[in-house]
Amino acid sequence: MRRSDAGPPGATASSPSPLVGEGQGGEWGVLASKEPTGAPPSPDPSPRAGGEKRLRHALFSPRSVAVIGQSNDPGKTAGRPLKFLRQAGFAGRVYPVNARRSEVLGERAWPSIDTLPEVPEHAYVVTPLEGVMGAIEACARAGVAVATVLTDGFAEIGEAGRAREARLREIVATTGMRIVGPSSLGVVNLRNGLLLTANAAFDEPDLPAGRIFAASHSGGMIGTLLSRGKACGIGFAGLASVGNEVDLSLGEICAAVLGDPDIEGYLLFLETLRHADRLRAFAQRAAAVGKPILAYKLGRSAQGRELAVTHTGALAGEDDVADAFFRDCGIARVETLSGLIEGLPLLARVPARRRTRNPCAAVVTTTAGGAAMVVDALASRGVEVAGPDEATYARFDAAGIKVARSRLIDLTLAGARYEVMKAALDILTAAGEFDLVVIVVGSSARFYPELAVQPIIDSAGSDKPMAVFLVPEAPQARAALAKAGVANFYTPEACADAVAAALARRPPRLTPPAEGERSARGARREGAAAAPHMLSSHHPTPDRLPRPDSPPAGEGGSIRTLDELESYALLDRLGIPRAPCMTLDANIVDPPILPFGYPVVAKALSSAITHKSDVGGVMLGIPDAAALAGAIASMRTRLPQLRRVLVQPMVAGIGEVLIGYRVDPDVGPVVLVAAGGVYTEIYRDRSLRLAPVDADTARDMIAEVRGLRLLTGYRGKPAGDIDALALALAAVSRLAAEPAVPEAEVNPLIVRPQGDGVVAVDAVVRMWRTS
Amino acid sequence: MRRSDAGPPGATASSPSPLVGEGQGGEWGVLASKEPTGAPPSPDPSPRAGGEKRLRHALFSPRSVAVIGQSNDPGKTAGRPLKFLRQAGFAGRVYPVNARRSEVLGERAWPSIDTLPEVPEHAYVVTPLEGVMGAIEACARAGVAVATVLTDGFAEIGEAGRAREARLREIVATTGMRIVGPSSLGVVNLRNGLLLTANAAFDEPDLPAGRIFAASHSGGMIGTLLSRGKACGIGFAGLASVGNEVDLSLGEICAAVLGDPDIEGYLLFLETLRHADRLRAFAQRAAAVGKPILAYKLGRSAQGRELAVTHTGALAGEDDVADAFFRDCGIARVETLSGLIEGLPLLARVPARRRTRNPCAAVVTTTAGGAAMVVDALASRGVEVAGPDEATYARFDAAGIKVARSRLIDLTLAGARYEVMKAALDILTAAGEFDLVVIVVGSSARFYPELAVQPIIDSAGSDKPMAVFLVPEAPQARAALAKAGVANFYTPEACADAVAAALARRPPRLTPPAEGERSARGARREGAAAAPHMLSSHHPTPDRLPRPDSPPAGEGGSIRTLDELESYALLDRLGIPRAPCMTLDANIVDPPILPFGYPVVAKALSSAITHKSDVGGVMLGIPDAAALAGAIASMRTRLPQLRRVLVQPMVAGIGEVLIGYRVDPDVGPVVLVAAGGVYTEIYRDRSLRLAPVDADTARDMIAEVRGLRLLTGYRGKPAGDIDALALALAAVSRLAAEPAVPEAEVNPLIVRPQGDGVVAVDAVVRMWRTS
Repeated sequence: MRRSDAGPPGATASSPSPLVGEGQGGEWGVLASKEPTGAPPSPDPSPRAGGEKRLRHALFSPRSVAVIGQSNDPGKTAGRPLKFLRQAGFAGRVYPVNARRSEVLGERAWPSIDTLPEVPEHAYVVTPLEGVMGAIEACARAGVAVATVLTDGFAEIGEAGRAREARLREIVATTGMRIVGPSSLGVVNLRNGLLLTANAAFDEPDLPAGRIFAASHSGGMIGTLLSRGKACGIGFAGLASVGNEVDLSLGEICAAVLGDPDIEGYLLFLETLRHADRLRAFAQRAAAVGKPILAYKLGRSAQGRELAVTHTGALAGEDDVADAFFRDCGIARVETLSGLIEGLPLLARVPARRRTRNPCAAVVTTTAGGAAMVVDALASRGVEVAGPDEATYARFDAAGIKVARSRLIDLTLAGARYEVMKAALDILTAAGEFDLVVIVVGSSARFYPELAVQPIIDSAGSDKPMAVFLVPEAPQARAALAKAGVANFYTPEACADAVAAALARRPPRLTPPAEGERSARGARREGAAAAPHMLSSHHPTPDRLPRPDSPPAGEGGSIRTLDELESYALLDRLGIPRAPCMTLDANIVDPPILPFGYPVVAKALSSAITHKSDVGGVMLGIPDAAALAGAIASMRTRLPQLRRVLVQPMVAGIGEVLIGYRVDPDVGPVVLVAAGGVYTEIYRDRSLRLAPVDADTARDMIAEVRGLRLLTGYRGKPAGDIDALALALAAVSRLAAEPAVPEAEVNPLIVRPQGDGVVAVDAVVRMWRTS
Repeated sequence: MRRSDAGPPGATASSPSPLVGEGQGGEWGVLASKEPTGAPPSPDPSPRAGGEKRLRHALFSPRSVAVIGQSNDPGKTAGRPLKFLRQAGFAGRVYPVNARRSEVLGERAWPSIDTLPEVPEHAYVVTPLEGVMGAIEACARAGVAVATVLTDGFAEIGEAGRAREARLREIVATTGMRIVGPSSLGVVNLRNGLLLTANAAFDEPDLPAGRIFAASHSGGMIGTLLSRGKACGIGFAGLASVGNEVDLSLGEICAAVLGDPDIEGYLLFLETLRHADRLRAFAQRAAAVGKPILAYKLGRSAQGRELAVTHTGALAGEDDVADAFFRDCGIARVETLSGLIEGLPLLARVPARRRTRNPCAAVVTTTAGGAAMVVDALASRGVEVAGPDEATYARFDAAGIKVARSRLIDLTLAGARYEVMKAALDILTAAGEFDLVVIVVGSSARFYPELAVQPIIDSAGSDKPMAVFLVPEAPQARAALAKAGVANFYTPEACADAVAAALARRPPRLTPPAEGERSARGARREGAAAAPHMLSSHHPTPDRLPRPDSPPAGEGGSIRTLDELESYALLDRLGIPRAPCMTLDANIVDPPILPFGYPVVAKALSSAITHKSDVGGVMLGIPDAAALAGAIASMRTRLPQLRRVLVQPMVAGIGEVLIGYRVDPDVGPVVLVAAGGVYTEIYRDRSLRLAPVDADTARDMIAEVRGLRLLTGYRGKPAGDIDALALALAAVSRLAAEPAVPEAEVNPLIVRPQGDGVVAVDAVVRMWRTS
């Protein structure tokens, strides 16, 4: 990984560290492999300068580690790392560092990192807050490649903590040492026993090694994934608790292990979309090498989002923004904990695909009641469950398997026997009408897995993805399925959750929004130091981009709201049709002849008025010039400061739509479409994507908004011009290429009958002032 | 249970069975307790005539049972009952009946029920379809009290099957023998080893006996509840697969065990709301004796409802009707399988209550990330999670427990120690601001339950309901909690599901709708034989009441749609304000002087026109008499058959609302309110209750409709007259007392500003013709 596209501004591959001597030759790896000499070898700059392979090595396969602040009490948090490393038989060299004891847990302890016989590749800093900055500085001075920091008391506690984080960034920028955390419960590699963690859950006898890499904002959750995964036959190559991500972000840590051939997929537990740009970069590369990513993100509810704030100090955005982000990145998002833990074997089998039709699942079962739960749960998540087509039914007939014509392929009558289930699976895995086969096995799964579970295992080699739900408690059968790599789920809800997430996954968009210009934006929120640099590059933006509902703030730039006329100029440039208009002086007594006919609408023209209608700044249906003069006069009375009035013809249409664009502080440019009027707000009925979008995607978005069904010929009403609406939506989304515009909203956009186009009749645009 | 209010028409307590001799004295219980004499004793009529205690006895504690059609192959379905009875050590007498063998599974078999040495109290009929009717007839002749029928091939297969069901009803009506099924996988009593079941899941070594009774439409699910319950420490007193409910319904079977002191609560797995009246009667009685009911019902999605049709032959209604029904009955409905299995220990602790404020849960935790999942899941289900009030914070301070001011009561800083958790629970269980305490324990739960799990167990005696989610896999801790009777959940979603269901439960309404007149209505759908009787009692209704969207049908009555004027007469009687109106001849040329001012609306007045607007039968905003004449003329041209035109003044208001009433075929009278216009349909934004409702409930309903927020002073707009709307809603719900009206809809009802009332400006009423 090149530091220049990953680290904060100021840290570059070539920044020489004042602490790094030159001309001491060789790779750090080579140096580190030497036997301890009693004197710390000088570190080589190259490993610190990056290189993903080397980062991976230092993170997960270091040959030497130090635990700074290792306690002598294995019951204490700071006592665990050494205990766990020894329990797991870590083969590298381990240096406990304890300033007050010469021995911890029966091993020699060293008073400080400077006294070690070599520079450890990876240091886990578990000291109390008062000693933590000194310890990290010492690691950096000594030439440690990666320091993982357990200690908390940083951004989450306020100003003092933020200052500490700024200092950590400075250390990273000036020395090249990489930091995981702070507040990291550690990093774990189950294949080499690197249990560099203080998470009590790793006090586990048979650690479930496997081929999944898990990363989590919550440190506790890596233990949960471990123990729950173990219970259902899911194993891990490695796990990382990423903490506050002051330097290495979750996306970078995951990217660092992309080259590890033993890792087949990723599980992410996210609290926010911090560093979304790096997560996206990782997701794009993971897709390119065929490694699926399954994510659970907190914050479906406002209460949940509020907790994410409290817990990490970061603000969480709206949940459909996260949905749009995951979709854009090709990350499958589940909504249940079990779906996260059990879902990856399924996801790995379902190709991410742009689909020309809705995906369709077959559900085959030996028990109708149990299977109905899965069908119900699938349908509630928008997955269509359909019966076979006629050709497939014919194959069932030919195989002598009696199945009723139904959504559910019910083998109850045919019997829960090996031959029946195997033949049914042979038929269904070959049936082109299904994207996926869900198999629901009844009571036989508990005591007679040879009847209906074994045929599933024997079909595991099929290309068709399979998901299994065993209705009874059937631990042996579940273990056998897991061993065979067949995705199986403990609850109907988790099964449906994972199936829906897998079928909804699309390939990531590989061209980042606006030709990559905004891809680093997510990083901007951390640290004031980053802001001026970003601002000077191409965006005249403050540290944190404002949401539409918060006033512009920050140094280095401010936002101004364009008036309606100026906003129209932008629409004209984007190619979004808008109503003709004429500007009149608010003091006018006799309106001139208009370039369009009556009736007209008169509107207060002022960027200072946000909600024109609310202050009597909009008058509709003005029938003639006299009425217009009256309208302007009355507006003048109500709004004494008003200078100009905008006059437009009344525009009729089939419906009103809101289209909008904004730069989200987490994920960057997004575009949205919603039904116009109050219902948008009340029903939160909108569709949102990362911008820009093409017309096809715009059409998908329009189809997702329930209120816009009124525009598609609902109940015999004439259909609106959906194509023109899609073009307008795509056009507004192209603002992603215009850094000067953080927000634009056309509301309403009048949709006229098919073929007659769309017309914007109001717009608000906000722009960065260039000063 | 009196047969007269439970059985199909024609079966009464006094109907003498032609096969029952008289004057043979004594209770059947007494007779049955005699030793076999070699000749079957004559049965006594009284047990057959009912009596809930005797029914319970015959169902679940028979002293003698027969298995009719018992196979010699224990691997076959028909081979299981005898095997299971013996495995479980059933102490009663068991008579295998097999027409072709003198021995099955090493025991003497009898050629027919007539040859047994006594009349068994309970017969399980597991013969193939061709022999089943003969076997049941023989049971009835012999005087068996209860026959449970495994065989399928009844209503679910069509006409021939329906004829068989009709015959079963006749047998019940003429002999008094009660039937469970057909298609019943059996009934089970785990306390006495009565495993009268063919469900393979009961081939289980340590059957989990406990204090829950489970009943299911799906036979497979009783095995699932058993094995999954066992895995999480949930035990059962008994289980019943109710099959097609041709005689004994799920509600009746549950009611039969209400007097069993060992049963503390009920789990129901429902596919439809068949026999809703009996389910309701059971639920009301269960509430009266403090036995909670937890239900899972299929059919959240349309696809799920469709399967319920396929599987049982019954049509499933809309899901919010089911919600309204459960609420009215005081049944808690969960949406997850795990919530069903794990939820009853919680439900048993949360009193069903009409609440004056939204219920509020405390969430206390040793792990913020894990707890945030629960908070998110709770909030997504509408449960408010709040931080403590100041007095409670003060108690935390006094106890020396450091907790941050947050929704989440996070003990991470205080430490996962016994004293900390115990003190926190002592404080929270005493805190009046919380209805319930959710405890989320992190990694310590897996290996160190003495730290944070033991204090929960030690607090189990508190009055405050507690729900526990252990974030890691922690089977031992879960078992300990289960043993202590503390509700605990395997997933955050199931935890939130059960908490939400428990907090939403209300006491059942004890006065059935319309003074009990309609309570038997749910039964009407089964069997044509029932219909004439029902019709002749008080409702001139066909077998199945039409839904609003299906045409009237059936024998014995037909429905007619009232025209708008006739409909207004009904509104007048109910006290629902409506606009004044005048009827004009459609051929009129000069309209007379109207009793109200212009502008007016003219509407085609004809019950034959369902959607007036769609055919040009409505003209709005007619400014004067000339325009009215023109409007009528143009309507006459478009609708040549039109005879009359209704004229009304235009009525302005703040919003339009739909209020409706109908008799649902499953649950009887329901009332609903929705935002008027197309959005009602598009967003399915409505609130529904069983009718009648009082004004307070009507107000609750109005608050549930999101679109009606526009009427409550939304964004500075004037508020509508919600009180008048509530009164109108309550008024229309009183149609529940009028059997002649199956459906009425006021749409729109104009809501005027607060204090100005509401005005109906259109209405459609349907009525039974009295012929």
